[in-house]
Amino acid sequence: MTQASSTNFYPVILAGGRGTRFWPLSRKRRAKQLLPLNSEKTMIQETVARLLPLAPTGNFWIITNEDLRVPILQQLPDLRPGQVLAEPVGRNTAPAIGLAAFLLERTDPNAVLALFPSDHVIFDEEKFLANVRSAINVASSGPNIVVMGIQPTRPETGYGYIEAGAAAKSGELHVIRFTEKPDLDTARKFLAAGNYYWNSGMFVWSARTLAEALREYLPATASILEKIAASYGTADFDATFAELYPKCENISVDYAILERRSAEGEGKSGIFCVPAEFGWNDLGSWTALYEHRCADRTERQNIISSADSFTLHAEGNFVHSDKFVALVGVNDLVVVETDDALLITTRDKCQDVGKIVKYLDEQQLEKLV
Amino acid sequence: MTQASSTNFYPVILAGGRGTRFWPLSRKRRAKQLLPLNSEKTMIQETVARLLPLAPTGNFWIITNEDLRVPILQQLPDLRPGQVLAEPVGRNTAPAIGLAAFLLERTDPNAVLALFPSDHVIFDEEKFLANVRSAINVASSGPNIVVMGIQPTRPETGYGYIEAGAAAKSGELHVIRFTEKPDLDTARKFLAAGNYYWNSGMFVWSARTLAEALREYLPATASILEKIAASYGTADFDATFAELYPKCENISVDYAILERRSAEGEGKSGIFCVPAEFGWNDLGSWTALYEHRCADRTERQNIISSADSFTLHAEGNFVHSDKFVALVGVNDLVVVETDDALLITTRDKCQDVGKIVKYLDEQQLEKLV
Repeated sequence: MTQASSTNFYPVILAGGRGTRFWPLSRKRRAKQLLPLNSEKTMIQETVARLLPLAPTGNFWIITNEDLRVPILQQLPDLRPGQVLAEPVGRNTAPAIGLAAFLLERTDPNAVLALFPSDHVIFDEEKFLANVRSAINVASSGPNIVVMGIQPTRPETGYGYIEAGAAAKSGELHVIRFTEKPDLDTARKFLAAGNYYWNSGMFVWSARTLAEALREYLPATASILEKIAASYGTADFDATFAELYPKCENISVDYAILERRSAEGEGKSGIFCVPAEFGWNDLGSWTALYEHRCADRTERQNIISSADSFTLHAEGNFVHSDKFVALVGVNDLVVVETDDALLITTRDKCQDVGKIVKYLDEQQLEKLV
Repeated sequence: MTQASSTNFYPVILAGGRGTRFWPLSRKRRAKQLLPLNSEKTMIQETVARLLPLAPTGNFWIITNEDLRVPILQQLPDLRPGQVLAEPVGRNTAPAIGLAAFLLERTDPNAVLALFPSDHVIFDEEKFLANVRSAINVASSGPNIVVMGIQPTRPETGYGYIEAGAAAKSGELHVIRFTEKPDLDTARKFLAAGNYYWNSGMFVWSARTLAEALREYLPATASILEKIAASYGTADFDATFAELYPKCENISVDYAILERRSAEGEGKSGIFCVPAEFGWNDLGSWTALYEHRCADRTERQNIISSADSFTLHAEGNFVHSDKFVALVGVNDLVVVETDDALLITTRDKCQDVGKIVKYLDEQQLEKLV
């Protein structure tokens, strides 16, 4: 196998999430990845832009859902419509990335593909590109699986962890095992140990390696995905996709492949971790966004999006509104106003915002979700 | 002097206040008295409506400012434009009510006039009418001044107090003295004593008594007001009013007349207090409105004006918005959203809302005040 060049590197961007915790700004047809949370570009526009030095526009795949397909094409006008695949139903990451692998296996025997979330912040794009290039080198030099690991900064219980072992020849680390969301005590031990990384959800491997892994671990799903891939570019594709994809197993790539293969043991599994040096934030909530945007905070630690505002004895608030905002004697609130909705919560309670969307779904308040 | 009949009873409604504590709903041209805070009628519409059993529409006088003159006429279409007087500049209550007295002295020698705020809630209209009729009887039976006293329910330091003495023949009480806003200790003593009443700002007296009192206590101002009154109905009125009114003393009727006259002593001053039996609330802030509207509160003591809302671990909040409102983990907030402004404060801090308007004035953010 040769070094991957940019012409056979294929970024696969997962953009099917609803990001309900950014309600009321995020909606079914305007999910978190379609919002300009970090800059004037939306999260998915940023994601594509930072990968363009590694691959031509035509190499990108976006995997999303029916609600977001058209909005994504509008935000990414350089992509052909066929590059944005809308899953008929969500089937987690294994079938999504698997479909990309089988599509590429047919067209480019040297394809190296990488999975990227569409809604994460990367602080240092140069270092990001360098780290991804390292991962591509490892992935294209054998039947290897490479995961980008994030150095933990807190005992986070909401992420998966990678236990890393010895370094391999180019600095990448052998992976010992994956651990799903740990309890707090375990997360603290991981943090203290120093050789644990957060699973970033960014993976790099050759299409062939991934396709073979799927045939081994998910044979039924692999067979379905091959049939769908075979119909790509034909008039039957939409119907085949719609009919067969729901029959795939609903399973994450972590659970379907990584955890099983890592059981083969450090140095034998071919799973490597490239520690990320680029700075990362998954912006999991309004609070995470508030924390991320430290440069936008006033002396009193308020972030208020509107042009004019007045604050009196008010600290640590995050307010998204176009109107004149007046805060008097309130602290640590999160206030988000849109055309049709007004959210008032606290930085501590932001993780419950998804419950509002659940309520709106139940009440069939379609206009608000 | 004869009993006042409805044809010589003249309600004078003071409607010049800005009511800045109801910002952002209240504005320069939409002051508190023009808002429907208590019912579907606005406060000034309620004020006029409850007095109609006592006086024909043509007997009403509204004293306001230039910003509110047209909006008031729009809300009270049965009034002639000449019944709504816009002060060229605010000169407190003595010149305002004095002008009404001199106008009436010229046209109706038996006129009894009463001063009413335009923005207070009256709970029991029948009892209100009965109390006002008692006051009219006292005022029309001699050179008397009658003030409606409110039984205090808390040691309020923001109001003036009336110290009442012995009862006169019809149940009205002789007034011993007036005390402006007391400190908390004093207010507590007043509350405990039982013979102190809040000064409601509602006064009843004959035009003749008031005119004579003004000539005695404020001779320069009385002379100015007589010239203005003499020009009423002529082409010169607007110019005369604009030129002379600013030369009046800027003084309250309480200070100019009531406090001085009450010094003559109980039983000699001719000042009486009719204790109000009608239930009263001056709705001094968003918090006062929240407290007043107990029937609109949910089980969790929230008041949310919008048709649909979602609350989770949220109690004691007041939210004025037309949008879908979601409250998560927040308590005792006051949130008021209008087309161009968003206020977030707490029920404890509502008294500071006026400071926002002060800031907006200073910044010349005209559209928001």
